[in-house]
This record gives sequence, structure tokens and C-alpha cells, in this order.
Amino acid sequence: MDIFPAQKLSCTIEALYATPNKQFVTEAVDALDLTFAGIEGDRHGGLTRKSGGREPWYKRGTEMRNERHLTIVSFQELQEVADEMGLAEIKPEWIGGNMVLSGLPNLSYLPASTLIFFEGGVTLKIDYMNGPCTVSGASIAKFAGVADPIKTKLDFPKVAKRKRGTLAWVEKPGRIEVGEKARVQIPEQWIYSGTPA
Amino acid sequence: MDIFPAQKLSCTIEALYATPNKQFVTEAVDALDLTFAGIEGDRHGGLTRKSGGREPWYKRGTEMRNERHLTIVSFQELQEVADEMGLAEIKPEWIGGNMVLSGLPNLSYLPASTLIFFEGGVTLKIDYMNGPCTVSGASIAKFAGVADPIKTKLDFPKVAKRKRGTLAWVEKPGRIEVGEKARVQIPEQWIYSGTPA
Repeated sequence: MDIFPAQKLSCTIEALYATPNKQFVTEAVDALDLTFAGIEGDRHGGLTRKSGGREPWYKRGTEMRNERHLTIVSFQELQEVADEMGLAEIKPEWIGGNMVLSGLPNLSYLPASTLIFFEGGVTLKIDYMNGPCTVSGASIAKFAGVADPIKTKLDFPKVAKRKRGTLAWVEKPGRIEVGEKARVQIPEQWIYSGTPA
Repeated sequence: MDIFPAQKLSCTIEALYATPNKQFVTEAVDALDLTFAGIEGDRHGGLTRKSGGREPWYKRGTEMRNERHLTIVSFQELQEVADEMGLAEIKPEWIGGNMVLSGLPNLSYLPASTLIFFEGGVTLKIDYMNGPCTVSGASIAKFAGVADPIKTKLDFPKVAKRKRGTLAWVEKPGRIEVGEKARVQIPEQWIYSGTPA
């Protein structure tokens, strides 16, 4: 995949957000304490979770392993989406973001099983790119104060496709802080160009 | 990735194996009961596990999320390895296999986050291809009764690279049985050929 310059990359935590009140919208914080169940007290915490619209193959509410502890986004990708939607900006907290990482081109494309080793000792593992939904679109419409909120709500899932960041779970718990650096390790399968015999 | 004929494939459970005595070698069974912690009573069970040689970036014994509940192998790939090593066969139980799936070309290459939906209701999610090690090599040497066990032990990690199957965890628990069929869903990112703007 030529969209990744190398198997090993580096990045920095630009911002962190939590949802202490269990609402969809997040609030900026200086640090997050992560356990094997995700962010302490977060609406997306838990070793398991209930399935929803993203898992159309299950009856809604089916108990399943929770692979989406954190929502990671990129300021650059969100700005590209905002530009295309005619908005000044899209703030990560409007769409439930938990972390902004800088230094990674095409953050949303980080392959499943990519490991992010934070210098403080925490490891996150990528599940898969996040799908933009109308809940986020409606939240953007509200906070941006647009003239046609229905249009903004419906535009977001289309415009933000493959630019809405990615989902990760906690492989190794601990505290992460704004400004912390991390090493990123993309699975060899994405770099290895050989094919089976 | 042209090694996958389509995003949606199907497969069948040819065999299942458990390790009731917590040894490395497994034993054939008719069914396996899976929980969010993996195979009931298995040596690889648990919501978390201790890191080992496959995670050289951690101090050995570091507590981490357990993403390797089951070892899945393919009779075809194992036969290719056996042929190249001059052996009549390599049995899945010799190398700690838990499941044999048929119908999937290049099983070891199933991408991370691939979902396997069994018709009985269980879902497994692929973590990543398994790396062949000398523990497996030594076990093969012992069971195959080779003339030069050291050579077999050291050959296996080289010859079986990218043919030693894959690791998966339980996304949705329940019972799986020999002969059961499953649908396989490869992440869209491996099929989608577009690149970011």
C-alpha cells in the first residue's frame, strides 16, 4: 500500500477528549486513564458492548466483544471534510472524538491490527476505520449553526467517508497525555508485496 | 488484493481441537464452547494474557489484551509445508491448532478484522496471521519421528512462514461444531482500490 510511507511511523497526541456525562459530544481533557475496558467511565467503555447500526448482521443490542474503545481523528482529515461541506471547521468533540493524532498521513486508512505504542507505556490497537453517520452530521449541523441542518446531517456520511478517523481498543492500559509521542507499527502484511505460491 | 476472489467468501469447519490438559498439543473434539474469553478451560483462554516472544516490544509476561483465542489452520497449507519439509503430513494438533477451515484459499492471509460468521451464531474475528515457531517445529519432529529433529525444529519457522494459519478471537460467543458452515467477510479496505485524495 503506497499510502503508507513505511511500516514504522511516529505520531503525537494533539488533543484528548472524554465523555464524563456519557453524552455523544466529548470534552477536552489533558489526560485519559485507560483500562482493558477502555476509557474509565466512558459511554464506549466495557469489555463487551451492544451491537448497533454498524453491525447490520446482528439483531440490534446483541452482546459482542467491544473493539471500539476510542475514536481517533485527524485535524487534517476533518478540515478536508469541513472544506468540502462549506464549513469553517469540524471540531473532534462534536462527533465524539477521543483523540487527535498528528504526523500520520491518511489516519483513517491505518490498517486493522496496527499497533500504537505511546511513550508512557500504553498500547492501542486499531480495529478499523470509522464510518461517518447522521448522528455526527446532526451534531455538526447544531454546533456549526448551519442554515440547512438536514443537508449537513445527510452530507456528512457521504463527504466524510474514509476521512472520519479510526477506532481502537486498549491492548495495554495506563495513562495517556496530550503532547505524548507514539510509535506506530503497521502489520507486515500491508507492506509485504509477495503473494502466496 | 487479488489473492482474495471476493469480499464475501464461505468456509466449513473440517475439524476442531481442544487442550483440556493445558498442554501445547491439542486433541480432536466434535464441538467447542466459546465465551468472550475464548475456549472454555483452554490454555489460550482469558480476556487478557501474558506477552511472550511474539511481542518483543514488551517485557515478557506483560499483561495485555488477549486477541489470540483460537489458532486456525488449513489442511492445504499444512500439506504444502509438509511436502517442502519432506514429511508425509503435519497434523493440526501437533502445532496446537484449534480449528481447520476449508474453502478459503490462502487462509493465512485473511486480513486482520475479517469476520467469520458461523451458521450457529458464533462470530470470530481475525487478529493476524500466526508466526511459526520452533516449539511447533520440535513438536512436529517428535510426532513425525524424523531422523534429524533439530533440522525439522529449525526448518519449520522458515518453511511455514505465511502458511501457519491465523489467530482469531471470539466476537460473539456460543457453540461451534465440526461440519458447520460459515460466511467470511473481508474488510472493505482490502477490496476497495481507491487511494486518498
